[in-house]
Amino acid sequence: MTEAIHLEDLTPGRRFAAGPVTITEAEIIDFATRYDPQPFHTDPGAAAAHPLFKGLAASGWHTAAISMPLVVQALGGLAGGIIGGGGELLWPRPVRPGDTLSVEVEVLEATPSRSRPDRGAAVLRIRTLNQHGEEVQVFSPRIVVPRRPGG
Amino acid sequence: MTEAIHLEDLTPGRRFAAGPVTITEAEIIDFATRYDPQPFHTDPGAAAAHPLFKGLAASGWHTAAISMPLVVQALGGLAGGIIGGGGELLWPRPVRPGDTLSVEVEVLEATPSRSRPDRGAAVLRIRTLNQHGEEVQVFSPRIVVPRRPGG
Repeated sequence: MTEAIHLEDLTPGRRFAAGPVTITEAEIIDFATRYDPQPFHTDPGAAAAHPLFKGLAASGWHTAAISMPLVVQALGGLAGGIIGGGGELLWPRPVRPGDTLSVEVEVLEATPSRSRPDRGAAVLRIRTLNQHGEEVQVFSPRIVVPRRPGG
Repeated sequence: MTEAIHLEDLTPGRRFAAGPVTITEAEIIDFATRYDPQPFHTDPGAAAAHPLFKGLAASGWHTAAISMPLVVQALGGLAGGIIGGGGELLWPRPVRPGDTLSVEVEVLEATPSRSRPDRGAAVLRIRTLNQHGEEVQVFSPRIVVPRRPGG
């Protein structure tokens, strides 16, 4: 059994990675039909004619959703799981059918709680990259992380 | 046919709303199994024993995903669709099985582009509320909005 990752292990600059996974046109349409029903996400013809997208693009929420299992995989040893209260979420460019996405997690900061000696907070930068190494999503959440018992 | 909403219609303080929808335990488990596989989202027993969640909680990405069709419904008349580059995303409290969620959209600002006379940018505050009127998600995206032709 791998030892769990605690706050003390999250030194700023430390990186974790996972992927890649490939996203298909069928998945893009399926997710968007249910969760983001707009023609540039669900209709390849309408998307091709769209002045900004010029082709089918995944919902940003789909990019977020398929990034998360990669984050769980990358940080799988995190004690207590990955629990975030949110953060800045950016989608610098669209995800297209056939794109192959990977996740890179970097620790930006990790701070013990002043009031709760058993835990602390970490700020991560989670970049989702396509097969060209281009950022398609950058999420910077603050997460709750247990301290090592007796550490 | 309802006239489309353009940048000129997005006066700061204007509000749009949609919902409610009810989220079930089966949906929470199904979404998380695929997109956020962590025990407090997929296993009611493990979730009940979790010190922070104390019961099954929806993935934040699930809250985001089920909020989006409500946003599309609320802003359905937006010319060009709802296209955002991201923003601050917060999950102040968990979503539980059986919760009934609504969305309230408020226009924070709307600014014509200096370089592109046909469009502008708006900043929205999109609050997802549960049946007690409590915020379960607050997303503040910047979106691209066409100006009214000849306006």
